[in-house]
Amino acid sequence: MTFADHLVQSVQKKRSSVIVGLDPHLKLFPHELRVAMQGKSRDQIAKIVEEYCTLIIEGTYEFVVGVKPQVAFFERLGPAGFAALEKLVKLASSRGLVVISDCKRGDIGSTAEAYAEYHLGSASPTDNSIPGLGADAATLSPYLGADSIGPFARFLDEGRGIFILAKTSNPGSGDLQDRLTTVIPEDKIPIYRVSAQLAQSIADKHAIGDCGYSSVGIVVGATFPAQMAELRDAHPRLIFLLPGIGAQGATASDVSVCFDKNGNGALVSASRSIMFAKAGIDSTSGPGAWRDAARESALALRDDLNRAISYR
Amino acid sequence: MTFADHLVQSVQKKRSSVIVGLDPHLKLFPHELRVAMQGKSRDQIAKIVEEYCTLIIEGTYEFVVGVKPQVAFFERLGPAGFAALEKLVKLASSRGLVVISDCKRGDIGSTAEAYAEYHLGSASPTDNSIPGLGADAATLSPYLGADSIGPFARFLDEGRGIFILAKTSNPGSGDLQDRLTTVIPEDKIPIYRVSAQLAQSIADKHAIGDCGYSSVGIVVGATFPAQMAELRDAHPRLIFLLPGIGAQGATASDVSVCFDKNGNGALVSASRSIMFAKAGIDSTSGPGAWRDAARESALALRDDLNRAISYR
Repeated sequence: MTFADHLVQSVQKKRSSVIVGLDPHLKLFPHELRVAMQGKSRDQIAKIVEEYCTLIIEGTYEFVVGVKPQVAFFERLGPAGFAALEKLVKLASSRGLVVISDCKRGDIGSTAEAYAEYHLGSASPTDNSIPGLGADAATLSPYLGADSIGPFARFLDEGRGIFILAKTSNPGSGDLQDRLTTVIPEDKIPIYRVSAQLAQSIADKHAIGDCGYSSVGIVVGATFPAQMAELRDAHPRLIFLLPGIGAQGATASDVSVCFDKNGNGALVSASRSIMFAKAGIDSTSGPGAWRDAARESALALRDDLNRAISYR
Repeated sequence: MTFADHLVQSVQKKRSSVIVGLDPHLKLFPHELRVAMQGKSRDQIAKIVEEYCTLIIEGTYEFVVGVKPQVAFFERLGPAGFAALEKLVKLASSRGLVVISDCKRGDIGSTAEAYAEYHLGSASPTDNSIPGLGADAATLSPYLGADSIGPFARFLDEGRGIFILAKTSNPGSGDLQDRLTTVIPEDKIPIYRVSAQLAQSIADKHAIGDCGYSSVGIVVGATFPAQMAELRDAHPRLIFLLPGIGAQGATASDVSVCFDKNGNGALVSASRSIMFAKAGIDSTSGPGAWRDAARESALALRDDLNRAISYR
């Protein structure tokens, strides 16, 4: 089964297009955990991060379709951080969640191959190869061109997916992405369209699942509604991964344009609004309260989104 | 002292602009090591990788100015790979080498901050902060714009450097990088120039060292001589990190245009031609032979390069 088919089945079953971003940004942790981290080793801090993220997964897995660990925050903790990341990916998979490794890797040839083998390679390979992270999909940066996507695309035929950055959600995303470029003299398109076309050209070379969507998707910031609509029109078969809801200001109704009439075609990712829903409020401190706050926040986002879109 | 000043001093002292790429691509390892890796755990494979890279560092450090570990190959091995990477960075630093983490990271806000803190943060911080990799510089992908560079640029004032990808050495680099974009109606520039301008704008906001160069540099593939010359003319104060010599086909005389009359302004990075100089030849097998082959290859590249450029 393709990644897209697996994803769409999960979305339909759960009636949820919400992806929880696992962004363990240490400065946003509940006060008592920040205190507990003071003067501790990376191994000890990584353990606290792992436990906190475990709470978030346990609290939300019934209402979300997947998780998107932001690799940077785990990498920050070195080897111990990667060990925690690997355990969390296993936990999320065991809970039936789709796992998108938000690594934004972009390199070439054998280097891209090493990244692909790590992020998308099985965590428990049966063929004596070296274990990988075992994510279902990964985010990729397109700056180095098609060369940098190829080694990841190989995994499309093994049920994995990729999301190529097109128009990202940050204020400075226009520095490169909005630059106009000429394809034919009469027609100028921005770089984010070039990136989406790159994704499309790879999608065209691989199987489209029964669901009608490719396992090649693009990342489009929900903070840019006009570009989101433009990209949706241009690429009806690509699944959109949409960050920018919540803390960054976009709303559920902003993103509804990205979904088809059956509620498919897009995933909405929210990180800190779920992970740190009430982390700053003393009266809700303690593991149970953090888990419940994440659960409530994920549920609210799912329902909010479902009011804006429709499922068959 | 700025990164650029430290680098230029090392280059002048050693009369070498060579950077050894530490690219432990497992498939290229000497036969007997590949055999030794069969069926081994990631921890055991990482140990072999660490020992091999140690030989390369010990064999070459007298003739090269720095090392550039390619993070992908360490990441491939998960936590154990990062542990090996950290040990190798410490070893290289202790041998007086400049360390450039070839991570090509590119993300935003707090995420970029986490990457910056890891790659450029001290491995032995004195201020109770979490230890980082402790590299002197890192390579960065510009797709997400200035937002993604800012958190790394903060480290420029702490003696660290950054190299922003402009025109990369791979065949597909033109997919995005060569796209023409319009700044003023009469003038079209390619995206790789936009990326270089982004680097320049950050360089302009930070101190230029006594050496006359910024600690913000750009990555320019030696495989594209015309673009290399164009970028050199446009950005005389940026240090160029030049991959593409050796296995990818560029020569020492191709890159001489990037150096000033004192032999400064650029670094030439070679990876597999040094690391696996004679790895395939049985008669030179064994640790001593691998180390000596790397030494000879590094020395030959240094001399070849020195014939093409000049030192004051």
